[in-house]
Amino acid sequence: MNDTNYTPSVAYLGPEASFTHIAAAELFGHKGLTPRPTIPDCIEAVTEGHVAYAVVPLENALEGSVPLTIDYLFHGGELFITAEISTPIGQHLMVNKAQKDFTDQLESIQSHPHALAQCHKFLQYRYRKIPLIQTTSTAAAAKYISEQPALHIAAIGNQLAAETYGLHIVEENIHDFHFNHTRFVVLSLRKEILDHKNHAASKKTTLMVKLPEDDKAGMLHQILSVFSWRRLNLSKIESRPLKTGLGHYFFIIDVNESEDHPMMKGAMEELAALGCTARSFGSYYVYETDPSSE
Amino acid sequence: MNDTNYTPSVAYLGPEASFTHIAAAELFGHKGLTPRPTIPDCIEAVTEGHVAYAVVPLENALEGSVPLTIDYLFHGGELFITAEISTPIGQHLMVNKAQKDFTDQLESIQSHPHALAQCHKFLQYRYRKIPLIQTTSTAAAAKYISEQPALHIAAIGNQLAAETYGLHIVEENIHDFHFNHTRFVVLSLRKEILDHKNHAASKKTTLMVKLPEDDKAGMLHQILSVFSWRRLNLSKIESRPLKTGLGHYFFIIDVNESEDHPMMKGAMEELAALGCTARSFGSYYVYETDPSSE
Repeated sequence: MNDTNYTPSVAYLGPEASFTHIAAAELFGHKGLTPRPTIPDCIEAVTEGHVAYAVVPLENALEGSVPLTIDYLFHGGELFITAEISTPIGQHLMVNKAQKDFTDQLESIQSHPHALAQCHKFLQYRYRKIPLIQTTSTAAAAKYISEQPALHIAAIGNQLAAETYGLHIVEENIHDFHFNHTRFVVLSLRKEILDHKNHAASKKTTLMVKLPEDDKAGMLHQILSVFSWRRLNLSKIESRPLKTGLGHYFFIIDVNESEDHPMMKGAMEELAALGCTARSFGSYYVYETDPSSE
Repeated sequence: MNDTNYTPSVAYLGPEASFTHIAAAELFGHKGLTPRPTIPDCIEAVTEGHVAYAVVPLENALEGSVPLTIDYLFHGGELFITAEISTPIGQHLMVNKAQKDFTDQLESIQSHPHALAQCHKFLQYRYRKIPLIQTTSTAAAAKYISEQPALHIAAIGNQLAAETYGLHIVEENIHDFHFNHTRFVVLSLRKEILDHKNHAASKKTTLMVKLPEDDKAGMLHQILSVFSWRRLNLSKIESRPLKTGLGHYFFIIDVNESEDHPMMKGAMEELAALGCTARSFGSYYVYETDPSSE
């Protein structure tokens, strides 16, 4: 935050040193951040006014379930997206500093199941015989090994976890797929646009579109025509089941344009004319976190 | 399996009594099933020929990360989908049988973070002051309370976990969103169609479609035209980032038709003519698990 007189309160999906924590600190600094144990806890904290913002993973997340975020966000329907933070996922192998000369004697490697899965090929090639132990988060694994200097154990986690718990990084970036970003969103009860520092030049807009009850084959095609002939580019589209029964879907659509663009206004009107229920979750900037600080 | 002379070996995302276990047992029975700790472990077991099939969550999963399945499945590119199992997610509150008269004295409730999140509203209304403790799986929580008859603790998990660990169910179906299904897929190296017992009447086909390098605004609309004018209905569409850098996407498309339908053959040819790379992961039946057994 550039405004030093104001520190907003921000809830993020914890625990401390989680990937969501890194993303939240990138935008808000370290003041005023409080961890919450689950995504609904984060969403409730902002919905009930306990905090000004909540930061939760939206896509390709390690520690949070993405469908969970989408379901609570889109079924609740009161919140707006005020910014997106796109963070590269860097997984590192780390040990207690007392163990740094004994990394050839590892007896187990601990981490969140998704982190172990993301480093599957590395672990197969380099540590095939070493037992893997699952923990509730990457940060919990880092914390545990920081408390056990005498044990030959390692954790997999991020840079912030290594710093927070004073660990030695044995090998950096051991995850199988590179260019692997997690998208985090900053949620608020107020429709606003966070404009703090460097960000992508153009805004994007996230829409939820529900088809009319009598939807038929080709309806999705018709919806996309609304954007296509206006040259509004979509960067994401995803169908999600409505919770009213099988076979009913709604769509999450990201448009690379601000919602106050004249073409966007026309698009929203045309969606309504087609019998669709379209709701905008707001326009916002995308903040890319600096890979070197990650 | 109806053929009693043959028991296929099946890897599923464990641990025992996981939701994936329920889905796998529904289709294959309980013989020949072995748990694997992560989704890549399941996929590798079938890719390397250690098992005939792997059962993993694909969408809206509790215990597995959905992006993880899609990334390993679609970047590996060797496997076919031979069946889908659609299972309602039923979360129940359970205690050790020695504790069933003391459920007003609960001191903690344990489960996987996603399960705690799925029951968020119930827990807020009924057990607001009770500490929630995160475990690595719902089954791990059930196992733990089965070993602690003297403690006033409860677990949240499924019916199979209650049966496996001999627990008393205090309250059924405490999850916030009903009609909440998880889609599991059965993967194989062989392109085949599992046709065991009752299933939906029609097959569906899952396609991965990569856009040409010079893709432009409206390309997705053009792709959907291929299906729309042939009256091929899509039940799902999702964009996923390619791992080659930012801004490049591929699409997962489910078509409600078998890939040997004449219209589907024409559609695949037209996609190629548009410069897209389209791959079919096979046609398969959807098996709905019986809610009463769940």
